[in-house]
Formats: sequence, structure tokens, C-alpha cells
Amino acid sequence: MTKKWVYLFDEIDAALQYANDDWEKVRGLLGGKGANLGEMTRINIPVPPGFTITTEACIAYLDSSGTFPDRMWEQVQDGLADLEKRLYKKFGDPENPLLISCRSGGKFSMPGMMDTVLNIGLNDQTLARLIAMSRNPRFAYDSFRRLIQMFGNVVMGIDDALFEDIISNKRLQAGVKHDTELDADHWKAVCEKFKTVFSRQSRHPFPEDPMEQLKRSIEAVFKSWNGKRAIDYRNAANIPHNLGTAVTIQAMVFGNIGNDCATGVALTRNGTTGENVIEGDYLVNAQGEDVVAGIRQTQNLKDMSRDMPETYHEFERIAKNLEDHYREMQDVEFTIEKGKLWMLQTRDGKRTAQAAVRIAVEMTMEGMISKKKAVMRVTPEQVDFFLHPQFDPTSLKKAEQDGNKLASGLNVSPGAAVGQVAFDADIAQAWATKENKKVIMVRPETKPDDVHGMLASEGILTSRGGRTSHAALVARQFGKPAVVGVSDILIDMSNRSMTVNDLEIKEGDWISVDGTSGDIYLGKLSTIVPDIKDPWLIKLLSWADQFRHLGVWANADYPGDAKRALDYGAEGIGLCRSEHMFFETERLPHFRKMIMTDFPLERRESLEALLPFQREDFAGLFRVMDGKSVVIRLIDPPLHEFLPDHIQLLKNLSDLKLQIRDAATLKHLDDLLEEIRAKETLLKRVEILRESNPMLGLRGVRLGIVIPELTSMQVRAIFEAACMVIREGGYVKPKIMIPLTSHVNELKQQRQVLEDEAEKVMHEHDIRVDYSFGTMIELPRAALTADQIAEHASFVSFGTNDLTQTTFGISRDDAETGFLVQYMESGILPENPFETIDREGVGRLLQIAMEKGRSVRPDLECGICGEHGGDPQSIHLCHDLKLTYVSCSPFRVPIARLAAAHAAIRSGRAKPSI
Amino acid sequence: MTKKWVYLFDEIDAALQYANDDWEKVRGLLGGKGANLGEMTRINIPVPPGFTITTEACIAYLDSSGTFPDRMWEQVQDGLADLEKRLYKKFGDPENPLLISCRSGGKFSMPGMMDTVLNIGLNDQTLARLIAMSRNPRFAYDSFRRLIQMFGNVVMGIDDALFEDIISNKRLQAGVKHDTELDADHWKAVCEKFKTVFSRQSRHPFPEDPMEQLKRSIEAVFKSWNGKRAIDYRNAANIPHNLGTAVTIQAMVFGNIGNDCATGVALTRNGTTGENVIEGDYLVNAQGEDVVAGIRQTQNLKDMSRDMPETYHEFERIAKNLEDHYREMQDVEFTIEKGKLWMLQTRDGKRTAQAAVRIAVEMTMEGMISKKKAVMRVTPEQVDFFLHPQFDPTSLKKAEQDGNKLASGLNVSPGAAVGQVAFDADIAQAWATKENKKVIMVRPETKPDDVHGMLASEGILTSRGGRTSHAALVARQFGKPAVVGVSDILIDMSNRSMTVNDLEIKEGDWISVDGTSGDIYLGKLSTIVPDIKDPWLIKLLSWADQFRHLGVWANADYPGDAKRALDYGAEGIGLCRSEHMFFETERLPHFRKMIMTDFPLERRESLEALLPFQREDFAGLFRVMDGKSVVIRLIDPPLHEFLPDHIQLLKNLSDLKLQIRDAATLKHLDDLLEEIRAKETLLKRVEILRESNPMLGLRGVRLGIVIPELTSMQVRAIFEAACMVIREGGYVKPKIMIPLTSHVNELKQQRQVLEDEAEKVMHEHDIRVDYSFGTMIELPRAALTADQIAEHASFVSFGTNDLTQTTFGISRDDAETGFLVQYMESGILPENPFETIDREGVGRLLQIAMEKGRSVRPDLECGICGEHGGDPQSIHLCHDLKLTYVSCSPFRVPIARLAAAHAAIRSGRAKPSI
Repeated sequence: MTKKWVYLFDEIDAALQYANDDWEKVRGLLGGKGANLGEMTRINIPVPPGFTITTEACIAYLDSSGTFPDRMWEQVQDGLADLEKRLYKKFGDPENPLLISCRSGGKFSMPGMMDTVLNIGLNDQTLARLIAMSRNPRFAYDSFRRLIQMFGNVVMGIDDALFEDIISNKRLQAGVKHDTELDADHWKAVCEKFKTVFSRQSRHPFPEDPMEQLKRSIEAVFKSWNGKRAIDYRNAANIPHNLGTAVTIQAMVFGNIGNDCATGVALTRNGTTGENVIEGDYLVNAQGEDVVAGIRQTQNLKDMSRDMPETYHEFERIAKNLEDHYREMQDVEFTIEKGKLWMLQTRDGKRTAQAAVRIAVEMTMEGMISKKKAVMRVTPEQVDFFLHPQFDPTSLKKAEQDGNKLASGLNVSPGAAVGQVAFDADIAQAWATKENKKVIMVRPETKPDDVHGMLASEGILTSRGGRTSHAALVARQFGKPAVVGVSDILIDMSNRSMTVNDLEIKEGDWISVDGTSGDIYLGKLSTIVPDIKDPWLIKLLSWADQFRHLGVWANADYPGDAKRALDYGAEGIGLCRSEHMFFETERLPHFRKMIMTDFPLERRESLEALLPFQREDFAGLFRVMDGKSVVIRLIDPPLHEFLPDHIQLLKNLSDLKLQIRDAATLKHLDDLLEEIRAKETLLKRVEILRESNPMLGLRGVRLGIVIPELTSMQVRAIFEAACMVIREGGYVKPKIMIPLTSHVNELKQQRQVLEDEAEKVMHEHDIRVDYSFGTMIELPRAALTADQIAEHASFVSFGTNDLTQTTFGISRDDAETGFLVQYMESGILPENPFETIDREGVGRLLQIAMEKGRSVRPDLECGICGEHGGDPQSIHLCHDLKLTYVSCSPFRVPIARLAAAHAAIRSGRAKPSI
Repeated sequence: MTKKWVYLFDEIDAALQYANDDWEKVRGLLGGKGANLGEMTRINIPVPPGFTITTEACIAYLDSSGTFPDRMWEQVQDGLADLEKRLYKKFGDPENPLLISCRSGGKFSMPGMMDTVLNIGLNDQTLARLIAMSRNPRFAYDSFRRLIQMFGNVVMGIDDALFEDIISNKRLQAGVKHDTELDADHWKAVCEKFKTVFSRQSRHPFPEDPMEQLKRSIEAVFKSWNGKRAIDYRNAANIPHNLGTAVTIQAMVFGNIGNDCATGVALTRNGTTGENVIEGDYLVNAQGEDVVAGIRQTQNLKDMSRDMPETYHEFERIAKNLEDHYREMQDVEFTIEKGKLWMLQTRDGKRTAQAAVRIAVEMTMEGMISKKKAVMRVTPEQVDFFLHPQFDPTSLKKAEQDGNKLASGLNVSPGAAVGQVAFDADIAQAWATKENKKVIMVRPETKPDDVHGMLASEGILTSRGGRTSHAALVARQFGKPAVVGVSDILIDMSNRSMTVNDLEIKEGDWISVDGTSGDIYLGKLSTIVPDIKDPWLIKLLSWADQFRHLGVWANADYPGDAKRALDYGAEGIGLCRSEHMFFETERLPHFRKMIMTDFPLERRESLEALLPFQREDFAGLFRVMDGKSVVIRLIDPPLHEFLPDHIQLLKNLSDLKLQIRDAATLKHLDDLLEEIRAKETLLKRVEILRESNPMLGLRGVRLGIVIPELTSMQVRAIFEAACMVIREGGYVKPKIMIPLTSHVNELKQQRQVLEDEAEKVMHEHDIRVDYSFGTMIELPRAALTADQIAEHASFVSFGTNDLTQTTFGISRDDAETGFLVQYMESGILPENPFETIDREGVGRLLQIAMEKGRSVRPDLECGICGEHGGDPQSIHLCHDLKLTYVSCSPFRVPIARLAAAHAAIRSGRAKPSI
């Protein structure tokens, strides 16, 4: 039996049978376009008839270095005969000519090789007939010149510019600006010139024989599969090179041969809001490309219901039909030829984030799709959109066009911010609070004592720092748009200005910062502010919650954060960084004193001064969370983070010494010497605490072991707060977490200190607190010995930032603006491991830790509280490893809820929906 | 049947039977002492008869809160009866009294609880008889007072000082200095006073009844097991608390009742040289303790062969007998009572390292022990002794007594060094080379450009830094004794002096540094220089080589190192740190220029200037190693290590600026400004290269990726050198190693750069070089993905220093003088993981890497080249994990050879001996 190389659109069932009912294989055989046209035909959508030559034919053609496979051409001719029969036209017939198009179409969309030849079948004879039939010579000549141009370019490889030059010259000659202003005679002349160029360039006259036109068009499409553009595209998009392209031959229909003709595009629902109404544009007596070209003012589809009510109702019915069939909002193209509606294309429609959510929810409520499908239809990125203001796309485009884009950096905290540049935290705060200005704080990098300025600002911009720099962490925590590591910016503090590529920006100038893209603009861009309270989103997330296994908790240090986290759906606090509380203005001096003193008594006094602050913060958290888990991590960062910068101090000191010679009075000199002495004392302490590699130094549990009083104070604050809230009638569930454990003995020792103090406080208050004790696993050794650790910890939380640092041996502080960028650009690392957990290395350690930990304590509660907790890919890994929960910044909670549902559904382990 | 609580010395067979022929169990039952006395009795060594009460009796006594177990006391009396029968004496008999001793003795030696009561059986009646029989009243009264004193102290708990005071007063009264000068009447008076003290303190008269004396002595020994001293000791020495102590009852013999009596100690071979001759001391008419007390001038044992030839020959025969029996050199105590020789104790003799080696080898050659046993008899520490000069023990003791010990630090590189203090590298070099002085270089810490001074010095002392600091690494590499991290030393560079506890030491003063112990002394101590060419050692190590599986390679950067490594038995170079070559005086400027320039051309020029140096060094290595493996690691450390210190530069700059106002002339000012400008340029570059955590920063393979020209230059140098040596007729086996790989893609990329350059050079020279390509595994991620890595690497080398840092998250630079000390002191970490590989964490990663790596490439060559490569415990782990080789500094090679043999033998996987 001869192989079937050609499938009519209405032979889609035969294709399906050949492909063993595998729709993907049908797409592979007929290409996406061909398969879709067949599918529309099958469900009785009016599609101009046609047929598709299979990808197998293409492969056979290419394999035999350019011969059509056996009987393919005969099958094409049979297909053509079928078309002729259906349309009562004949291909190449001078009386009633059939015109056809020939298009490529592979399994995957490949924008780089969309080779198309339209109007095949036209020649001098059929052209004359077209003029007569359409009574529209302009249309007919225009159609013919298009055939010559496309055939010349696609089939013969003639440079398209040669054709376009002719049209330009004709416009000049005619004294017009647009092609639409050229009349029939102009186009007629163009056709003649095109033929001349064609024969001169290809050394052959333009083929008058329609069969030759068709045959060579098919060959051209086949060959285009191995064209340079196509190969490059496939390499880039990771598409296999052995698939081949299908060729779709379809009868031409025309929307531009009279006022009973039209052409248009439509979305079956509103693509901006998601509302369930058709929206679209059309043009009477026009060709498809005229609608998108924007040359003529298009009409709203509503007019069509008025002007062509019957056709419109048929269109409505078809649109509904297509939506029902594909169970998705459709983006369709149509043409009306002499009152007859033809659908030319349908595909899933593009939409905004809001529309995506609303459509998914409404389609579910309309019974079109399941909840599971609705949840899968919305991406985590689309949820993120609801959480931050964005720049208006037209405003963005304008800024680009005007050359107002200044630079790009790391997009560490999404959202759009517009404000006046302030170069330090105090100015930022003063302007924002006293003068009610909108401020963007710009710094080389931020430190803990910049936080008040950051909170007062609309957005944050730094020239240094990486994805997990202080600026990035704080910005994300508080939902402030931020871009960091913008190395093109040179900040000149003495001059209070910054320079970007020779452009100087003064303090107080307006800039716009796009934390979503990482771009910085000069001036004020306009923003769109979405609404997290969107009822459709709330519904969708509630469905997501039904499917997921992973809990979603939040990182929150203050009651305000905790409140927001709850609003966004967090089920607990997975990380309260207890040291953040030490950075506030009235607390830092006590904490510094505690670090700097050599005297135990003074140290105890400082700790006692800090106790009430910590207690009040913890009590606030407990009250808000009302019995939900609150994981409090004891102090973590190296002590020197709380001290002034070493280098800065040295420079200050040097400056002060230089001032001595200028001291005007003896009094002045005394003051100066006094200041120098004080700074020198400070410097000494800073130098003692200095470490070559602070990330691997005296921090985390090591602090608690070296200064056990610090652990005791923090534990006391937690338990006093807990007792207080319980006495008020509240519920509390504190979980105390030890950071940076590497050896189980550290845990044992700290547990003893903790239990001693906890017992003391509970005894003093005569109240039992239901608490638990656990640790971070953020060092490889802790992961490797998680069985030992689980014997002493009832929960563990993976600190994947630190774990990534040590597993890779890469310092996040330095690398993200350094060699790591080069690593990602050159493909050495597929992605930034500080953004998405590295499955092979860090993920393997997590797996080892989970297996070992749960082997000893099957109910071990396991969470993750690093930056990865809000990253969808990482959340997927957490689901796969059967973690208990992920914890992320409050602003990532909705995203995490959705991502966790996606992971559950994708893995086939979703909970049954209610 | 009644349980047997008491074993006569000649019932050792019964004990063995009870213990199922398990000698360890016999030692557990009878204690080490009791078992040994039984064993000597069994092989017919003349031992004063006696018996042992078992540890089981002790446990039963303690469990029943102080009642002798059923029939124990009767069995003791039976034992006593046996003694009486053998000696024709009777316990408590006024006519012919038997005197006995009662001693504790557990399974393990416990110096803290050696409770002994001698002369039990003496009372007023038997004393009189002893006087009569011995005709030596002084001896008899002295014996009696000892009983009262020991019984009072051990049994009744009377403070020994009360007794000693009485003796002191008596000496005063008598006007003599030593106890030996007190006569019989003095001792008689002392006895009376002792009795008074006894009855006043214990509210009981001294018991005259010998049976009561015995019973209560036994009880006292039993109880001493739970005494505070004993418990503390067991806690410290990790001895279980449930073992109990045995009690040995033995007839007293006396060497001090006439000139046919004597007492002495001896080693069956020379304990200093190991020569096979008996050496010892004895005293005629004396008691055992007089020999060791050093009050009387002892006689050499040789005199005994002259003065008591018969007894001496019997002694010789017994000594040989004991050695043959125990197959080990013995340390014996003996007493001659009226011409009758009694052996009181035998145990394995202590010996110097030289003696240990010679004895082990000679005993093997005498057929006494196997080669395997000989190899096991010598410890790696003893081998180390041969490699470094040591301080003369008497000189050490004197320095301690004179208070010349200054301080202690980390003993990072063994050996003794004496020299004049030099506070910088240039002075150290100048003094050593030009003035031929012996120098100790003293610095706060060392940097790469101090190396010339370190090489010129006898030893190195720093006040900061840890076990793997620069100073420690370099010192070990070159075998220079070094002590680092001596925080008690305050160095005042401006004054060119240092202060230790108020004592000021000027530059040029003499000090002595003990790198073996970590102690520092004022002045010049005398040293002993051992010989690595010791023929016995060479023999022993050759035997060790027969048993081991692990290869022993060396870390060597220069031909001189490689030569030494070969001399010491290295089988290859496991690590040539190619960057060390950049530190030399004529090279560093080029290297600095390479780092500092922004211009590719200048960079290339600098690299070209370095090429010939590297080529020559590599060629030298290849020539020395003559076809043995040479693993060359491409550049590893962070670039800023090659630049001046940031802080120092800032301080310099500040000082320079202060000088401006003092500039005397305009010329001077110009020079100053010029210098300031230069330093500011340097500072800028240093600041650009500065990293928060350089250990996790731009280093290792990351350098090669960021600056591929650097890799190319190094590869070119290696291959040009290889071609050169091959052309000379030599053999070369270069192995090029990429440091700090975390992702296999790094390896792929560098491999390409390497192969391109290698091919180019080989083509230029028309020579094929048989090279291989591999990587360090020194990051957790590399270990976890060793299967991927092994696809591109034909060998791997574990860098366990770095791997320990990242697995623990501990920076070796900071921690070893910081919290890690506290961690070890408080037992959180059982040992320093930078000294001995942490089995549970780092060891687990090694195991994962070995399994994964060999799963892909079964013949993957695996080595270790960190500091652990010379540590016996870590070598054991490497053997267990079936590594191919360990690589260590040349000075550790002999130690590693022995340790590898020990590991093979202990694991039961030794190669069969030839």
C-alpha cells in the first residue's frame, strides 16, 4: 500500500488513527497549524478547505536530496481536485480560477522560518479573470504582485529589498505616503517591474504555470527546514533537528473584494479584564494584514453586530464553539468573503494576569474546566503581578524610545517605584515623612542602620550587592521595589550626585526603578496599581490550597509583617530573625555595648536592657498568630555586622588626624583629640572582631556557645512573652530554632541552656508553655548528620542560602555581582543557585537530610526558610522531598501557595479537591 | 558451688579457663598487676607468693554497700594459709611472722588510685621478732612506721601531712637532713608518735590484730574504686565505671636486711639506643624506693655481675626468659633477700623513638616477632622524631625549673629551633646569610612575601594564625619548626621588641622554639639531632611498604622539595602548587602587574614574562621525578593574596598624608605627593579585588575561567617543560589538576582551554606528552556530583582542608585561634577537624564521592593532598575508603608510609608480606 503523504483537513480522523489516537503525534505529523485546521474542520467550523503534506514527506524529500517521495505529488493533485470540487473552482482555470496559499508549519512554532506563499494560481490569464470577477483591479494587481514578491523571495531567494525598492519608488512617483494610496494602475506597473526583477535575478521568467508555482513552493518550504535561520532557531530553542515541517495548502479567501467582505481578529473574552465578552476589531473590505498594520482605523466588533447582524451571530456561535472545544479563551482570525464567514486561525489567547485569573475561575464556574485545570492555568509570575505596582507598558515603551533607560541591575524585589533620589537614609526619611516627598534611596550598598531610610522610600537602588545582599533581603521583606548591583552607576557622595554613562543625576532628581525587570529610568514613569484583594484571585488561591501538601508559612520579624503574612494566607511564621530587632535606633547602642565590653557585669546590664524590647516584639507576634506556629531563630549574624564598618572607621580616623593641624582653637583641638581617642577605642574592638571570612566565622550557634548569656536572654524574652500572652487568654506555639549547627553537640549544649532558662521562667510564672526546639540545617555537615540532629531537634528548617554558599563554596556577597554573572552568561551554571535551588548538589544534601532525619524521627517537621522558599521551581523540589512547609517573605506567600499546588498536581500527588 | 573470689598466683590457668582463654578477660578479672604476677609465676619466674581477690568481689562488695561476698573472706584466709605453707611463716605469728602487702590493681592502669598498704602483719609483738630476726632494728621500726602511716592514710583517711610533720620534726631534732640519717631510736620514737596521731585522728587505737589490718585494707582498696580521684580519672581517661578493682595480696620480701640483700630496676635492652644489652641500676642493702629516690648513688648492673655473679646470671636468664615470653623489651623490678632473687614486677619498657625502631627490627631478625608486629610496634609519632631536631630533655627540664618558659601556642611544625629574634623577613635573611647568625623569625602572622625570611630562619613564631595558616603551611612544607597563634606575645614593631607577661624581648635576643610541643623558651636550649638515615628505620619502613595498599606521594613545589620527597620514599608528587612559584622576588612584580592591569596586551606581556620561570620549575620537577607522576595544580588562591594588605595600605597612606605638613622642602613635598598618588592607585585596585569572604570568592578554577590566558600560560609552561625533558631523554608524567571545581561545566570549559593549548605546544615541538587531566574535590558539591566529574577527569584529589571549611562552615583562618579552641576544650568537637578528618561529615562526603566517582570510572585515581594527608588517623580513613594514595609534605612521608601500613594491618587488609 502506498504511504499517505497528504491529509485533507477533513481527514483528521485518519491522521489520528495513523497516530494511534495520540494528538501530539498528529501535531508532529501535520504541524500545529495543519492539525488545528483539521480539528476546526472536524468540529464544523467554516474553514477554507485545504490539505496538509506531512512532515514525513518533508523528511523523505530532504533525505533523498530533493526528490518528492513516491506518489506524493499525485496525492497533492488529488487534494487539489478535492478543493476544486468543493469550491466549484479550478486551479489554473482561466474562467473560474482557484487560488491557494502554501505555508510551512512544524510541530513547534518557529517564528524564524514562517515561509508563506499566497495567491498561488495567479498568472496573466487568471489575473484578468480575477479583475473581472472582483470588479476590483486594484485588489487583483496587488494580489498578483504579492505572489511574485513572495515566490521570488521564498522560492527563488531574491532579496526582498529589491521588490520593496520598486514600491517605494512608485510611491515617490505617485507623490503618496502609503501603499493604500496607490491605485490599480500603480500596482499594475509594479507587477511589470516585479516580473523584470524576477527574471533578471533568477535568470528565469516568472512561471505562468500554476502547477509549477505550487510544486516549487512546496519544495521551498521543505528546504526551509534546513535553512540557517531555522537551524539557529532550533539550536536556541532546543528543538530537535529531525522533525521536518509540514506544508499546508489552503484555498484563498478574500475580505477585500467588496463591502460584503471584511476581515478581523477577536479574543473570545476580554484579554485585559477577563470579562466574558468577545472583544475584537475588524475592517470592512480589507485584507487580514490591514487590521494589524494599524493603517486604517479599525472598527470595534460591536459595530459588526449592528452592521452585519447575521454574520456576527454566526461568529458569536463559532467563538463559543471554539472556546467550548478548546476549553480556553481563543484568539481567532476571520475573513468574510461576500457575506460568507471563514475562520482562518484559532489559538489560545494572550491575556493579562488579571484576565488569566478571572478567566480560569469563571470557566471553572461555567463548568468548562476543573478546579485543577484552573489552578494550572495561572502562573506564579501572574500572581506576583497582583502584589506590586507595575509600570504602564506604554509609558515603558516611551521611556525606551526617548532614551531614558539609564541602566540595568539585579531585579531583587519586584514592583515599580518612582521618586526623588536621596543618597542617605536620614535624608530619605526626612523628605518622605516631613516633606511628604516620594523618595528612591540610592546607596553603594545598604547596612542595617539604613533600614529607617529604606522603609520611608518608594524603592531602593544600590550600585553593589547581590541577590541576597542586605538591600535585597530587606526590600523583599517589606515589599519595596529594589534593583541592586547596578555597576554602571558611580555614586559621588561628596558631590551628592551619581553618574550613569556621563549623565549626572543630582540628589532630588526624579528616577523610576523597575524592580520586576531590573531596569532604571530617568524621570517619572506612570504606574498601574493592581489589587491583591481581587475576588477571582482569592477564589483561585483557595482552590490551590485544596490541592497542595506543602504548608506555606512566612518569614516575619514584627507583628506588622505577621499580620500581612496572615492576610496573604500564611499558616505560620517559619522564620522570625530575632536579631533584626537589635538594629532599631534605641536598641543598637545596648547591643553594641554588649559586644564591646570585656566586663561580664556590663554585658549582663546591656542584655537586661534589651530584654523588654525583645519580649514585647515576641508577644506582639504571638498575639497576631494566635496559636499558629512561630519559629524564632536565635541570633545569627556575625557580631561585627552590628559595629561600624572597619574601612570607613579607618578613613574617618585618618581624616580626623589631618584636621589637627587646622584646629582653630585649643578647645577645638581638645575635642578633636577626644574624638580620635574614642574612635581608636572603637577601632581596636572592630579589629579584634574582624574575621577573614565572616560568613564562615563567629556567628549562629557559635555566638550562643561563646556568649551563653545571649541565648539565655533571648530564651527568657520568648518565654516571658509567651506566659504574658497565655495569661491574657491567648494561644502561643513558640518554636525555638538554633542557627548554623554543624555538630549535634552544639545542639545538645544549647538545648541545655535553653531548657534551664525556660524552666526558670515557666516556674516563675507558674505557666507551662507548649514549645518545641529545633535547628536550621544550613551547613553540609548538618545535612549529612541529620539523623544525629533529629534525635535532639523536633523540627528542622533548611537555610538554603547558606547551604548553597557552602555547598558551592561561593560567597553570595561577592559572587552575584562578580564571576557568577559570567558563569550564567557563559552557561557554566544553568541558573543562579541563589534564586533556584541547585537540585544536583544542594538538593541532594536536602534529600540526604530528609532521609536521615525522618529515619530517626518519622514526624520530623521540615521546612525551608531561605530566599528559595518563594521560588516556584524550588517549591517544586520541596514538594518532591516531602517537606512540611516552605516559608517566604509575606509578599511571596500567594505565589508560594499557587506554586505548591502546581507542584502537587504536576507530581500526580495532589490532594483530592473538595 | 561457691564462686571463686580468690586466685593464687599459680592458679592463673584456672582464671584463664574461667575467662574462656581470653587473656583480656583475665586482666579484667585479676587486674593487670594480678594477672601479670600470675603469668610470671606460671612461667617459673621467682615471684614472692601471693594471691588476687577478683574485681568481681569488689563489684559485689560495692553493690551490697559494703559486705564481702559470701565466702570471700574464707577464701582469703585459705590463700593466706597457702602462703604460710610455702614460706614456712605464719601471719601474725610472734615467732615467725609473715608480712604481706595489699595493693589495688584494675584492668587499666589508674595512677590516681594506686592505694597500697605494705608490711601488713606487723604489730608490737611481730615487730620485736623482726628486730631479732633481721638484727636490724632501724629497718624494723622503719617498716612499722610505714605500715601505720599507710594504713592511717589509705584505710582511715588520715591526712598524710600529719605523719610527715612528725618525721620533719624528728629530723630537725636530730639535726639531720635526710630520712636515711635517722637511726633506729629515732624511728622507734616516730612509731610511738604515729600511733598517737593515729588514735587521736581516727578515735581508734592502731589495730594490733593482723587479720583486722588485712580485712580493713582490702575494704579500703575496694572503696577506693569509688573515690573522687578515681572517678575523675576514669572520666578523663574514658574508662568505664563498672569494672571494679582487684586486690593483690603478696608476701613481703626485703632487700635491706643485710649485704646479701639488694634491690634494683632494669631494662632488658638499652632504652635509649635499643642495643640488645641489659641496662639497669641497683643498690645493695636497700629498699626498692631508694633506687628511684636518687638519695644514694646507685650502682650499674655491670657491677652486680662482678659482685654477685651467680645471682646476676640468674637475673640475666630470667630477663631473657621474660623477653622471650612477652616478646617485648621488659622493664623489671627485683629484690634480693638474703641471696635469693625475687622478681617483683615486669612490664613493657619505655624507650626512645630510636630504641623502639631498633628493638622492633632486631627482635624480628632474632625471630622473636613477625615483620607485621615490628611495624605495629612503632608509632607514627616515633618516626616523626627522626625527622627533626629535638630539645635535650635535661635542658628542657632545666629551662622549666629556671622559669624560662615564656608561653605556649599551636605546635604546627615539629622540631626544635634556637636562634636570635628577627622581626621581619629581610632582617632574618640578612642576618642568616650575611652574618651567618641563627635566626628565629617572629611575626604577627606571615604572608607570601615573607617566605625568603622563613626559609633563612631556624624556626618561626607568630602571635596569630591557626594550624593551617600561611606560616604553618610553609613551615611544615620546608620542615621548619614553628609555633603559631601565641596570643600571649605582644609584638611592638615600632620598638622592635615583643612582650610576654611583662618581660621584654628585643630583636637579636636568643629564644628557643619547640615546634613539637608548642612551647617557647627564653635563651638557648641544647638540642639532639637524630638521623633519618638510621639503618633500622630504613629497614622498618621498607617492611611497612610491603603491607600498605595506599600510595604515599608528596606535596612539592620545587625540584629541591621533590628530591627530598624521593629520599623519604615518596612515589610521586601529589600536589605541586603552581602559584607558589609566583611569589619569588623576581616574579611577583610581573604577577602583580598581570592582576592590576585593565589592558589585555599588558596582561599578556606579564604572563609571557612569567612563562620561562614556570617552565624551568616544571622541567626541574620532571627531571627529578623521572617518569613518576607529577600532579600540577593550576593557580588556586584569591588574587588579592598577591597584593599588599588592604588595611596596611590604608594606614600607610594615612601616615604619608600626615607627613605633608612636615615636608621640609618643595622637592620633598613633590616626592611625597608622588608616593601618595602611587599608593592611591594601588589602593583602588586592592579595593576592587577585595571580597567579603575571599575563601568563597574568586579563586581556583574561577580564576581560570575569568582569565583564560592564565590557564593557557600555565599549560604552555607545563607542556614546554615536558617536551624539553623528553627531548633530553627523560620520562615525564604530568597530571594537570583544576582546583575548586563545584560544577562539572567548569571542568569541561577548562579542559577545552587546556587541550587547545596542549595540542598547540605538542604540535610546535612535534612531541606527544602522555598527560592526564583531573580536578580537586574540595567543595561539597563536587563530592556530591563526583559521577559527573569523573566523566571528565581521569583522577581526582581530595582537598580536605577546604572541604572541611565548607562542610563545617568554619573558616580555618579565624576559627583555629577563636571559637574552635573553645569547642575542643568544652568537648563539643572531639578533635580539631583541620588536624584529623571528621569521619561523620567530611568522611561521609569522601565516601559519597568515591562511590559516585568509581561507579562511572572504576579505575579513577583518587588521592588526598590536604594537610590531613600526613595525619595517621586520616590516613586510616583514606585506606578504609580505598583511595589510591595520600600526598603530604616531604617531612611527613615516612610517617605516612608507616601509618598506611598500620591502617592496612589493622583493617585486616594488609598485603601479604614478602
